[in-house]
Amino acid sequence: MKAAIVMGSKSDYPVVERAEKILNTFGVEYEIRVISAHRTPREAEAFASGAEERGVEVIIAAAGKAAHLGGVLASHTVLPVIGLPIRSSVLDGLDSLLSTVQMPRGVPVATVAIDGAENAGLLAVQILSVKYAKLRRRMKDFKADMAREVAESDEAFKNI
Amino acid sequence: MKAAIVMGSKSDYPVVERAEKILNTFGVEYEIRVISAHRTPREAEAFASGAEERGVEVIIAAAGKAAHLGGVLASHTVLPVIGLPIRSSVLDGLDSLLSTVQMPRGVPVATVAIDGAENAGLLAVQILSVKYAKLRRRMKDFKADMAREVAESDEAFKNI
Amino acid sequence: MKAAIVMGSKSDYPVVERAEKILNTFGVEYEIRVISAHRTPREAEAFASGAEERGVEVIIAAAGKAAHLGGVLASHTVLPVIGLPIRSSVLDGLDSLLSTVQMPRGVPVATVAIDGAENAGLLAVQILSVKYAKLRRRMKDFKADMAREVAESDEAFKNI
Amino acid sequence: MKAAIVMGSKSDYPVVERAEKILNTFGVEYEIRVISAHRTPREAEAFASGAEERGVEVIIAAAGKAAHLGGVLASHTVLPVIGLPIRSSVLDGLDSLLSTVQMPRGVPVATVAIDGAENAGLLAVQILSVKYAKLRRRMKDFKADMAREVAESDEAFKNI
Amino acid sequence: MKAAIVMGSKSDYPVVERAEKILNTFGVEYEIRVISAHRTPREAEAFASGAEERGVEVIIAAAGKAAHLGGVLASHTVLPVIGLPIRSSVLDGLDSLLSTVQMPRGVPVATVAIDGAENAGLLAVQILSVKYAKLRRRMKDFKADMAREVAESDEAFKNI
Amino acid sequence: MKAAIVMGSKSDYPVVERAEKILNTFGVEYEIRVISAHRTPREAEAFASGAEERGVEVIIAAAGKAAHLGGVLASHTVLPVIGLPIRSSVLDGLDSLLSTVQMPRGVPVATVAIDGAENAGLLAVQILSVKYAKLRRRMKDFKADMAREVAESDEAFKNI
Amino acid sequence: MKAAIVMGSKSDYPVVERAEKILNTFGVEYEIRVISAHRTPREAEAFASGAEERGVEVIIAAAGKAAHLGGVLASHTVLPVIGLPIRSSVLDGLDSLLSTVQMPRGVPVATVAIDGAENAGLLAVQILSVKYAKLRRRMKDFKADMAREVAESDEAFKNI
Amino acid sequence: MKAAIVMGSKSDYPVVERAEKILNTFGVEYEIRVISAHRTPREAEAFASGAEERGVEVIIAAAGKAAHLGGVLASHTVLPVIGLPIRSSVLDGLDSLLSTVQMPRGVPVATVAIDGAENAGLLAVQILSVKYAKLRRRMKDFKADMAREVAESDEAFKNI
Repeated sequence: MKAAIVMGSKSDYPVVERAEKILNTFGVEYEIRVISAHRTPREAEAFASGAEERGVEVIIAAAGKAAHLGGVLASHTVLPVIGLPIRSSVLDGLDSLLSTVQMPRGVPVATVAIDGAENAGLLAVQILSVKYAKLRRRMKDFKADMAREVAESDEAFKNI
Repeated sequence: MKAAIVMGSKSDYPVVERAEKILNTFGVEYEIRVISAHRTPREAEAFASGAEERGVEVIIAAAGKAAHLGGVLASHTVLPVIGLPIRSSVLDGLDSLLSTVQMPRGVPVATVAIDGAENAGLLAVQILSVKYAKLRRRMKDFKADMAREVAESDEAFKNI
Repeated sequence: MKAAIVMGSKSDYPVVERAEKILNTFGVEYEIRVISAHRTPREAEAFASGAEERGVEVIIAAAGKAAHLGGVLASHTVLPVIGLPIRSSVLDGLDSLLSTVQMPRGVPVATVAIDGAENAGLLAVQILSVKYAKLRRRMKDFKADMAREVAESDEAFKNI
Repeated sequence: MKAAIVMGSKSDYPVVERAEKILNTFGVEYEIRVISAHRTPREAEAFASGAEERGVEVIIAAAGKAAHLGGVLASHTVLPVIGLPIRSSVLDGLDSLLSTVQMPRGVPVATVAIDGAENAGLLAVQILSVKYAKLRRRMKDFKADMAREVAESDEAFKNI
Repeated sequence: MKAAIVMGSKSDYPVVERAEKILNTFGVEYEIRVISAHRTPREAEAFASGAEERGVEVIIAAAGKAAHLGGVLASHTVLPVIGLPIRSSVLDGLDSLLSTVQMPRGVPVATVAIDGAENAGLLAVQILSVKYAKLRRRMKDFKADMAREVAESDEAFKNI
Repeated sequence: MKAAIVMGSKSDYPVVERAEKILNTFGVEYEIRVISAHRTPREAEAFASGAEERGVEVIIAAAGKAAHLGGVLASHTVLPVIGLPIRSSVLDGLDSLLSTVQMPRGVPVATVAIDGAENAGLLAVQILSVKYAKLRRRMKDFKADMAREVAESDEAFKNI
Repeated sequence: MKAAIVMGSKSDYPVVERAEKILNTFGVEYEIRVISAHRTPREAEAFASGAEERGVEVIIAAAGKAAHLGGVLASHTVLPVIGLPIRSSVLDGLDSLLSTVQMPRGVPVATVAIDGAENAGLLAVQILSVKYAKLRRRMKDFKADMAREVAESDEAFKNI
Repeated sequence: MKAAIVMGSKSDYPVVERAEKILNTFGVEYEIRVISAHRTPREAEAFASGAEERGVEVIIAAAGKAAHLGGVLASHTVLPVIGLPIRSSVLDGLDSLLSTVQMPRGVPVATVAIDGAENAGLLAVQILSVKYAKLRRRMKDFKADMAREVAESDEAFKNI
């Protein structure tokens, strides 16, 4: 089982890193790449066209502003592409979100929240879980852990 | 291979129907349900909690306004949930989009464009394709067909 | 007379605290809880379903981003639910506001301003005042105090 | 038990009527008025100041554009005021929503969705229910009816 | 010739001060007040109703969030009211702007830019200039000064 | 006493007409012009520069989209300029509003609501009233008439 | 001198046609194509990579929703690319505008107004005018014609 | 070959500087000016009207808030005008963007991203490249350099 994380610029890494951490937590192998839809478009095509053959099963694409990366990768592959809109310096990521999610008919990009890198990672795991039962079991543990964490905060407040 | 389509209100069906058509085109079996996150919350829980056991592998959740359906279903299952924001009578679906996509850390909803029902269907197929090779082949044909259709329009304009 | 304050994450407490302070000022007893609509959905249901029986008469629900907490609680109780949209790191709370206020027909959430925690507390008091005459009297004193405070600022400027 | 419905202009009535219907359904007595915060401000003050004495226990204020009606009434009474933002000809009601919900510290307006008149009525009923047990029972029936209606739609789709 | 500056809260003063400075620069006498549309509504009415009699000829109203101050004052006077939307902690003043400018038919508020305090002052001067020729002459000087300032910056860059 | 109404395109007239009607109602003499800030910029300059000399005392500028007309006229005169943002085919007039109201320091445009032509006319009258007592008296009558109209609607509803 | 017009879908033609008409008016030769950034990405690359060699000197790219076409073409050529955001069924073209204009550093797209097809055509002509003096002369005539048209409307209103 | 950079205020220079740097990199001669559409409108006219004669072939106009500079210059010249919307203190530059890009029919402004100064410079170079083959060659080198830079980041991540 193998995923790929592609970011449009290395400056996206501080956000993207949290997606990477999720994949590591779940033991999902991944490629991590810096590919710009606009500055290295041929690399984007090469990457996406060859992804399936290299065993990649799901792609996370992180980009900001007029965030075309998810759409460009999705245009060159039939693998599911997860779009992670990165908040840029202006407009608080609304441009990134709309550029990623409002894909025209025929080429979906599975979009998560602005800067929602953990969720991009978790969605990748959920998608892989369709095939890999082991991941599904781990995801249930992960959800249980999250619930426990909330319950502990809850307990702390109840006892005040 | 089995999907589920849940809509928050039967009035969403004219949009949702286009997702259904995609699943039919690809030969994906599916449950279709009307469940309201707010008016039938226990049904929502029952549906989502039991989905995995019933063999459902991916869920499409269509809802408008403060569109909580995707998030509510995702809170009760580890299956991937696709959020389809429905344009309501005001704000042009911006409320539906933000309520669906801006999920907090831990519980992703894979969001497609406002009223983007075909893409919700296609994303479901792509996710199932991780497991079912047959679907991936069909998806490639589908993409080729789309490309052909564009090429024909292109040809028509070139020859004017 | 008894209220409840529920927050989606303990990180909401610095804002929520101001609502708590109002309830204390008015001598309203309250439960305070950390419950996530998405990470601890069963707890949310248990809390809301049992609230009436425990004597709770009004609920304040504070949450950010795709803020479903108010709606989820409202789906499991007939008590009035006050929605307090919390400003998250992006979009300045517009996502929280729309996810809270744009509830579909049948399940209202009484929404106050983004991060408007005092007003959430005051609205809870006003709602309880329908039943408890003592609170209404205190609310009149509170309004008079506010007016006096403004009048003092006014006086200070007039005399410059 | 008595409510009041105030609209800023008679042209708001086609929307407001749905709130009125809810109050009738629940057997809540009400005053219905046309009072403009800007064109008849003294009437607004007279209405709000005297409401408590006339036995009114909750007020619904419906207005569009720079919708000040809810805030103006709330400034003259300690009764809970429900703000119903009316969609005007431009901006799809976003102006009405923000003018109603973003009340400054000290004077809350319990805001419902844009054009969400049923919910304004239901919220009024929920607030009165704090005092009147009979209304709470009816509200439970109302919720059960809504659930049944959704369940019927659901059944219809399941059997296709 | 006499103006009035009213702010909804003393916390608005750091912005409002720049309007005050303009009035001082032009030698326009003014009242300066802190009056809250919501916390001291009777004072707002008293102020606005009596303004004409006290010799006030134009009013500047500065307020944030659901900024009703301009509208409330305008409802109680026929004097021209200038609305100065103050940027609050969320939504960057969009709520203040829409609450101020989108006044319904019959009661205009002459709105300037968010936090545009100098322009509020200058607009007051321009309005008074309709009557006081002396102010018009000073305004021409002021414009010439501004032009000169820009021209100097321009010169500095040209010579680099 | 004399006003001017300038519109950016003759297609704005159906809205602008309502401002004209107000001026007629109040017996204010006016010039009416079609001048485009972008297509006839020299005419705009000539008009604005000469307005004061021709006896114009206040200018209403109506324009849509990137609505520069108000700002351009204001840059060439010290007369007060009222900006009337016209709703264009897209974005519901938000572009017109922001282009008109967000004027930089030094050159205010007194902005009214999107398509708020009556209010543009009334604001012109209020500004002229600073000088012409007769207009102020008429404005009071106008306000009384508006109040009466609201009161009649109110009466009609009360008696149902 | 040669331009190219590319649209993302043949359904964009009713808008795009107005750009075509401008090119015809100015006697600019052009290619017209239907190429989808997402459905026919290789055609997009082939088109853009070969454009310079085929003598194309400026490209107009018209697309809606998550409008990547302009950016994708710009990534494969050094020719100036004009982005024409098409208003789609939701969000009034705000998504198209932001997806087109907010291009990251290094790859500009010269964006015109939403549905601003004439301006896309005129901008193409202005760009070609840098090289072709004849076009510049015609552009001056065109501007004079526009001014004349406005002046005629102006005259008509002046004489009423 | 000659460009011009005009900024509305010297405070825009920290952003504008990056456009200047691009022109220097490409060896494009340029005028740099501070001209305010609103405070020095005659200078704006004089500059734009005479630009062609002085040999200027493309103009970059940088301005914030109600950013009219691009439109005002474009109204006085047939040269291509590039609009660079500057992010001001509120609304994150959305006002600047809409005021610049939403130009009415007949007078285009080639708009780049908010604060996208490098892209404004690069677009100027691309436009000049239509005439100057040397610039086009340099632009290809520039694109190759950018691609190389991305490729190096990519390599760094691949080898981790």
